[in-house]
Amino acid sequence: MDTMKAILERRSIRKYRDSEIPQNDIDEILKAAMYAPSAGNQRPWEFIIIKSSEMKKAVCESLPHGKMLADAAFGVVVCADLSKEKFPGYWVQDCAAAVQNMLLSSHSMGIGSVWLGVHPVEERKAAISKTLGLPENVVPMGVVAFGIPDQKPDQPERFDRSLIHEEKWQK
Amino acid sequence: MDTMKAILERRSIRKYRDSEIPQNDIDEILKAAMYAPSAGNQRPWEFIIIKSSEMKKAVCESLPHGKMLADAAFGVVVCADLSKEKFPGYWVQDCAAAVQNMLLSSHSMGIGSVWLGVHPVEERKAAISKTLGLPENVVPMGVVAFGIPDQKPDQPERFDRSLIHEEKWQK
Repeated sequence: MDTMKAILERRSIRKYRDSEIPQNDIDEILKAAMYAPSAGNQRPWEFIIIKSSEMKKAVCESLPHGKMLADAAFGVVVCADLSKEKFPGYWVQDCAAAVQNMLLSSHSMGIGSVWLGVHPVEERKAAISKTLGLPENVVPMGVVAFGIPDQKPDQPERFDRSLIHEEKWQK
Repeated sequence: MDTMKAILERRSIRKYRDSEIPQNDIDEILKAAMYAPSAGNQRPWEFIIIKSSEMKKAVCESLPHGKMLADAAFGVVVCADLSKEKFPGYWVQDCAAAVQNMLLSSHSMGIGSVWLGVHPVEERKAAISKTLGLPENVVPMGVVAFGIPDQKPDQPERFDRSLIHEEKWQK
């Protein structure tokens, strides 16, 4: 799929068909994540793949807006290993760029996804860290649920020229 | 350009030819940014386009690794209007996803780019806010420099299976 088409068409998909997704496709999505840019090219990310019903339910219990994860084909918890950071505090941006690559690559393959926020909500981070057995230096940034779409969201116009300023702030 | 190809081929481009980039292309890149996902779909982003030599120099003075901005065709300072946030603290991830869309869309159009970190370094944020005249509720997240590439970076393998864990943390 064309890059610009993927960027403009991608929407959060919260309803999934009861279909499995081949491991090759999952690997391709994770590969896309690992090609994101990162501060100092440190690539601090770690990925926990959740496929079992038990773990999908356990993780979505920590996510107030994440009930669809239980019906997803799989979930990915995107974490950062803070001990890999050269420039402190950039791990959030690094992991967010990796997530965006996952959302776009999966959409281009016909797989729907939704990004569920974890960081910076401390209670969600603590609960997910406990559920997954994360070591102290590894923190969860977000969760992405993936599945074959069973909904077709609207495609509203989102380009808004009032958000663009020339040379300086102008409003 | 194919989405997966754009994701895997994109690299930070720090050397640019002395070429102008048409306004239509700039608009397309900003449109891509505005189609990123955001927490609660609040789209808190604001974009300052820097084209003049004077402003490119003024902004890159605040960026220790950002000297290439002076030679770029243009720069975009990606900011967040914190007054638009429904879920506090997610603006960093929202803006990072918007930046990633800019990097991928520009690469797919033959335009090179590099992401220059601003947040969470308070002195860079303060200096850029002053240079651009940002109001108190608007904070700079990062700067992206764009130009026609005058370098061809390596394409190293970045897929690393050791970063993938099944169901729980395993190492």
